[in-house]
Amino acid sequence: MNITNLFADIPDDLPEELVETLLRSGAVRIERIVSKGHRSSDGFWYDQDQCEWVVLLKGKARLQFENGEMLELGPGDYLTIPAHRRHRVEWTDPETETVWLAVHCDPDG
Amino acid sequence: MNITNLFADIPDDLPEELVETLLRSGAVRIERIVSKGHRSSDGFWYDQDQCEWVVLLKGKARLQFENGEMLELGPGDYLTIPAHRRHRVEWTDPETETVWLAVHCDPDG
Repeated sequence: MNITNLFADIPDDLPEELVETLLRSGAVRIERIVSKGHRSSDGFWYDQDQCEWVVLLKGKARLQFENGEMLELGPGDYLTIPAHRRHRVEWTDPETETVWLAVHCDPDG
Repeated sequence: MNITNLFADIPDDLPEELVETLLRSGAVRIERIVSKGHRSSDGFWYDQDQCEWVVLLKGKARLQFENGEMLELGPGDYLTIPAHRRHRVEWTDPETETVWLAVHCDPDG
């Protein structure tokens, strides 16, 4: 059995956010996302057809919602973002890697 | 939007392992499991119809497989346990809470 670590295998240099699929099984999809100061472009909003469960495991981030709501996230914080709830990553810590897991909801769920 | 923390809301007393569903969406199911010294009974093996993705986020544990393989897990360690790969939790740290996330594979995947 292979063990991998969520906090390992992070390149020193992260010109772009790093997104990797850790598991894909039918409707189930788990991603690891590593940010370091990355943020959504001004005026960009994610608008997803499915809900998404997100947990921040290391680092710090701020999520912004189109209604103006702003959420500060630290290690262990998780939430489910409903489908079509427009949001963006307003800020991630530029000093350290921010590691997220994202689990996508079932498109047929 | 509601934020919850994976490391919060853990009762002081854990007579049994704590298992909570954090997300259920069609085939997608995410659970938080909190152990504190809990282990599978001697001779008990999990034998699951679907594969399971497991990550340990806090604490320490040992997983045993029927072929004799033993895995030590620490924070951030994850693996995918194939369907019908018989396994048990041989040990979890009795001194601190061990927090796991489990994501079940798609039964139709």
